[in-house]
Amino acid sequence: MGLVAAEAPVSSVCAALVAAYAAVRAQSGSICAPLAVEDYVIQSMADVSPPKWHLAHTTWFFENFLLQPFVPGYEPFHPRYGYLFNSYYETVGRFFPRQQRGALARPTVEEIYRYRDHVDREMRDLLATAPAACWDEVAARVTLALNHEQQHQELLVTDIKHIFAWNPLRPAYRERREAPAAAAGRPQGWREQSAGVYEIGHEGGDFAFDNESPRHRVFLNAFRIADRPVTNGEYLAFMESGGYRNPAHWLSQGWQTVREHGWQAPLYWERTEGAWRTMTLSGMRPVDALEPVCHVSYFEADAYARWAGRRLPTEAEWEIAARNGAVEGNFLDSGRLHPAPADDTGAPTQFFGDVWEWTQSSYSPYPGYQPAAGSLGV
Amino acid sequence: MGLVAAEAPVSSVCAALVAAYAAVRAQSGSICAPLAVEDYVIQSMADVSPPKWHLAHTTWFFENFLLQPFVPGYEPFHPRYGYLFNSYYETVGRFFPRQQRGALARPTVEEIYRYRDHVDREMRDLLATAPAACWDEVAARVTLALNHEQQHQELLVTDIKHIFAWNPLRPAYRERREAPAAAAGRPQGWREQSAGVYEIGHEGGDFAFDNESPRHRVFLNAFRIADRPVTNGEYLAFMESGGYRNPAHWLSQGWQTVREHGWQAPLYWERTEGAWRTMTLSGMRPVDALEPVCHVSYFEADAYARWAGRRLPTEAEWEIAARNGAVEGNFLDSGRLHPAPADDTGAPTQFFGDVWEWTQSSYSPYPGYQPAAGSLGV
Amino acid sequence: MGLVAAEAPVSSVCAALVAAYAAVRAQSGSICAPLAVEDYVIQSMADVSPPKWHLAHTTWFFENFLLQPFVPGYEPFHPRYGYLFNSYYETVGRFFPRQQRGALARPTVEEIYRYRDHVDREMRDLLATAPAACWDEVAARVTLALNHEQQHQELLVTDIKHIFAWNPLRPAYRERREAPAAAAGRPQGWREQSAGVYEIGHEGGDFAFDNESPRHRVFLNAFRIADRPVTNGEYLAFMESGGYRNPAHWLSQGWQTVREHGWQAPLYWERTEGAWRTMTLSGMRPVDALEPVCHVSYFEADAYARWAGRRLPTEAEWEIAARNGAVEGNFLDSGRLHPAPADDTGAPTQFFGDVWEWTQSSYSPYPGYQPAAGSLGV
Amino acid sequence: MGLVAAEAPVSSVCAALVAAYAAVRAQSGSICAPLAVEDYVIQSMADVSPPKWHLAHTTWFFENFLLQPFVPGYEPFHPRYGYLFNSYYETVGRFFPRQQRGALARPTVEEIYRYRDHVDREMRDLLATAPAACWDEVAARVTLALNHEQQHQELLVTDIKHIFAWNPLRPAYRERREAPAAAAGRPQGWREQSAGVYEIGHEGGDFAFDNESPRHRVFLNAFRIADRPVTNGEYLAFMESGGYRNPAHWLSQGWQTVREHGWQAPLYWERTEGAWRTMTLSGMRPVDALEPVCHVSYFEADAYARWAGRRLPTEAEWEIAARNGAVEGNFLDSGRLHPAPADDTGAPTQFFGDVWEWTQSSYSPYPGYQPAAGSLGV
Repeated sequence: MGLVAAEAPVSSVCAALVAAYAAVRAQSGSICAPLAVEDYVIQSMADVSPPKWHLAHTTWFFENFLLQPFVPGYEPFHPRYGYLFNSYYETVGRFFPRQQRGALARPTVEEIYRYRDHVDREMRDLLATAPAACWDEVAARVTLALNHEQQHQELLVTDIKHIFAWNPLRPAYRERREAPAAAAGRPQGWREQSAGVYEIGHEGGDFAFDNESPRHRVFLNAFRIADRPVTNGEYLAFMESGGYRNPAHWLSQGWQTVREHGWQAPLYWERTEGAWRTMTLSGMRPVDALEPVCHVSYFEADAYARWAGRRLPTEAEWEIAARNGAVEGNFLDSGRLHPAPADDTGAPTQFFGDVWEWTQSSYSPYPGYQPAAGSLGV
Repeated sequence: MGLVAAEAPVSSVCAALVAAYAAVRAQSGSICAPLAVEDYVIQSMADVSPPKWHLAHTTWFFENFLLQPFVPGYEPFHPRYGYLFNSYYETVGRFFPRQQRGALARPTVEEIYRYRDHVDREMRDLLATAPAACWDEVAARVTLALNHEQQHQELLVTDIKHIFAWNPLRPAYRERREAPAAAAGRPQGWREQSAGVYEIGHEGGDFAFDNESPRHRVFLNAFRIADRPVTNGEYLAFMESGGYRNPAHWLSQGWQTVREHGWQAPLYWERTEGAWRTMTLSGMRPVDALEPVCHVSYFEADAYARWAGRRLPTEAEWEIAARNGAVEGNFLDSGRLHPAPADDTGAPTQFFGDVWEWTQSSYSPYPGYQPAAGSLGV
Repeated sequence: MGLVAAEAPVSSVCAALVAAYAAVRAQSGSICAPLAVEDYVIQSMADVSPPKWHLAHTTWFFENFLLQPFVPGYEPFHPRYGYLFNSYYETVGRFFPRQQRGALARPTVEEIYRYRDHVDREMRDLLATAPAACWDEVAARVTLALNHEQQHQELLVTDIKHIFAWNPLRPAYRERREAPAAAAGRPQGWREQSAGVYEIGHEGGDFAFDNESPRHRVFLNAFRIADRPVTNGEYLAFMESGGYRNPAHWLSQGWQTVREHGWQAPLYWERTEGAWRTMTLSGMRPVDALEPVCHVSYFEADAYARWAGRRLPTEAEWEIAARNGAVEGNFLDSGRLHPAPADDTGAPTQFFGDVWEWTQSSYSPYPGYQPAAGSLGV
Repeated sequence: MGLVAAEAPVSSVCAALVAAYAAVRAQSGSICAPLAVEDYVIQSMADVSPPKWHLAHTTWFFENFLLQPFVPGYEPFHPRYGYLFNSYYETVGRFFPRQQRGALARPTVEEIYRYRDHVDREMRDLLATAPAACWDEVAARVTLALNHEQQHQELLVTDIKHIFAWNPLRPAYRERREAPAAAAGRPQGWREQSAGVYEIGHEGGDFAFDNESPRHRVFLNAFRIADRPVTNGEYLAFMESGGYRNPAHWLSQGWQTVREHGWQAPLYWERTEGAWRTMTLSGMRPVDALEPVCHVSYFEADAYARWAGRRLPTEAEWEIAARNGAVEGNFLDSGRLHPAPADDTGAPTQFFGDVWEWTQSSYSPYPGYQPAAGSLGV
């Protein structure tokens, strides 16, 4: 009897997971749909991976951490794919050098899609037939692997943009999708937060990556934080006041970088005929003064803030400020793939969606963090 | 009257040139026919160019040096192709950095074939309609451009081999084509040449690259030269006697290179299960002891010769020795794309075809050489 | 009357400052006294500065930030020394590239000592005659400059050690000075600290560098911290258990570094005839199992801690733990210039002196930190 | 009786060799006499060796190739000097990395002079007491080693110039020594040479380095060669006509170098207040239009010649032209250490002395050259 009761939730969890699996895996294909075969192969700089590599690596992740351990007698689709598509899991084995991924003609794009299809079939079988005894572990790993694939979807879009932007022909990935009737923009306002001990970190319940745990207390001084991101127009004022020519605004290493690389504007900005244009996934477009500024480095964000008489928030400050709003915004499913101007409702906005936002904090483990054993840490 | 007489030869020259144009251009396509789209895009090391780049560059050469100067009102097929596919003609304009050719997804392979078709149509028109007044110049440039494309066909095969060899999957470019009944091999013999003043360099008449001129006299001491190339078997003896471990055999810079890169065998050789195998265009194959050794650097050729108590010939010695035989051998049109063992007729052999052969001479201009004016020097 | 009262303290402050000036400046000379002229010139790696550079740079600091602004009509000792001996003060002007300091024969060591003497004379004059109106500013700057010179004294000893250790002759900087009767060592114990909000940062009153301010509150979980540093003997256990061969102990970038550089032991350790020896300022000596381990990188400290089932403390934890003890220890004035074993009193020890101690925290500004205006920020 | 007759020449040879030994060894000291201790230690770029290294290396050469083999029971002065001061004799053993010679404080300059004194004493003993049976070998090696030291004297002067020129203080090595009453200069004339087979290479009799042998025949076309080197004034005309801005003058790799390094003038030239000045061993001096141009690279010499409608001579042409004049010129013993204007006698001049002269030939062995066995090849 208890068994029946137990099965019901498992089965509905299972259905949800099967649906999530199908949706996430299909999303990767959708992102790549506009690409020509040639686009899948390119590594336009060392930090970029070819789109086909992302497609294969995320598939290898399922094969290696789910099919191999949980499907009795499972043989890898190809004996060398583990070597080619492992990314950095030292404990799993040696892997192909990251900076040479763009020199791999084979496997072809078609072969990689066949690899995906094969693993998808096997995963559907596994999700349908996994014995109850290992279901929890399977479900946890699938959830992790789907979140991992979503991370790579973000990288896919980022890398595709670089691959297209870097090409002197400045090709477009696809047609532009207009944002809803453009907002008029609004002046930056401030949100106050009082001093005190706060709790941050994952509260449990749903999925989170391990670097969002454990929940812990921090002391924050009173602070205030802007109610929307810095816009292109505001950043242009920094540029036009000589921001890139005055060492007083910059961290020492930032200033060295500015000089070494001749930085004069954010990545992807170009000045032609007296106006700034920027590369988008729909080709070159005029810089829109109301959109959040994007593709700035930590050094540029920090220099802007210093020039403006402010500072970047700490990670804890940002998290406390962000938790007040709903998790809504211009995400992948808006279909725009481009940041939009802040609305003019007056409420704090764009803590989620649109752009990554810099804090001044280094990327360090939370107090009490323990790496889990094993390659996955699940 | 004179005009008619004059036209006849021009017209036959023209027909020959049209035929040569068609044949050479088609050959480039034939070489690439076995490739997947992905293979066309790869730059597996800085010295390699992607196959599609070779196809576009040779086409640009016709467009830039023939269509633009000789077809009134000709507009380039694409305004940026000159920038992308110029290789090194500084005087023509700036060009795309060589070592980044492999980061270009676009133009696609299909677009490049369209570019080739377009230029081929225009070239056929030009060859059919070029006014007599500029025919000599047109014919000279077409002849140069076809020879230039043939050079790139050699590079295409070389680069394709690297692209395939470098891939950990060791894919095959195509099926192997067997050489005719394998020769039994024969011991190396020697050809004597007496001391004296000789003439070398292009004698005129047919096409030659400018670096084969002018014809000039050189004094040579008496020397003797092997009547066939060094074989894999002979080179293996050098390896097995510790050739790669003894600095006494090597030039100073060669020895430094051996140590820095851990050289232990020619490029593409791998030792598996106690036997040497080598990458070919048909995948990995056992090393054939009778075939000429290939893919050795200057340093290795020089070290082998010193170990064997010999030396590399000078360029002049090689040319004098080579002119005694017929220009016959295992060329591209044998379809093998792989060196074959020497025949056992006893005549000097393989001065032409099969493999590039090292001399000890640096690559320097012949006495009296004058670079012609202009980018082409035609 | 008030004036007299006011003068008294100024004058006594002044006397103290004059004495401090003389003592600190003399200390730099004492550290260099055992050097040969040649030792002063060497930059044994990019991060090392030649000893003579330290001597000149600290002198330029007084000249640039005190003599030039406060001595009317002061002319720099040499017009190019500002360029040569400015270190990184972008806002003061361009400076000589850091990594080429070891290629400067001139000025000679003797000239640099003359430069020091000149500036010392001028500084004594300034301290004797500075008008009351600017005394506070002068005193603050002198205090900063003396602390700056003391920092460079620490670098001097560090760099001298590298210069001597790096030399294949392994010369000794000076005779060894024995530590007092060697302690027997004691097992590592733990100090408990309860959770709560703590205050850290400079409390004001005496001198502190600006990166020690402002005082601020932090929340700390309960933690415990070792009552003495890790010893050579403990670190050897990590090494002997294969610590340098197991990626599971290391941060990803740490493991990459271990492999790239072939790390097998702390810097300066060498294995000869079955025993570990280490370079000291008195030449090569056997590794003493009871001394604190030194010359380990962040990656090594972190890997050791993980192997031992512990973690590095955060900066705030370390500061809270350290404030319980007296600021006593094996400093420069012990004359040993080498860490000593922990005593066996049982009290927490060596929070000060002996060795730098790693925390897991990045080097980031304290909350509320504001860089002061100007080059100095005084 | 025959023996007595034989002894006489040996003894006079011996006296000459002893005198040569003393003179050459003293010359190295004289060149270094104006140096400060600091100057001896500097490696201002990878190709430069510190002066003290030259002094020690040339001494090691005597120790290793003469004292060790010929003095029974000889113990090296220091067990590690072989490692430190061997330069590139792989077959003798491993050696200290060349590019780190400037990071060696020890041995000190004084110790190196003691090393020289020690070896000089031992060498005098050897020359006085070497048994007749090995005299020929000893004499040949001493002759080689003295020539080797003279080569290093040339490097010493070259390297000292770089060490001083590179220093922002532009110190002077010593006072200037005026050339004799400055010549008025004369226009460049030409010497004709007819076509034919010539002999070049060492004729035997006195000492020559092995790369000057064997004597051999070459065929030369008729050519003419300038009767004096190109002057600074002539080279300035090339510069002022835009020579450094026009790729048509340059070899492809030369042009790339010009752009990468921003070349605008010969090494050591600086433009200040509208005039060109150049670094000399006596500090910065105005460029003298009549002096031969110096410190130009192969690429610059080649570009100048092409701009002037000429070409560089081949090595064989230069040798044939040079053998017509007396071996006279502005050598080390003129004491000037700086090139002088051509005299105005009208005779070909400056084939010897003043400046190194570029040919277009690569540095390759003469026909028939055989490296001798062993490290020395004596």
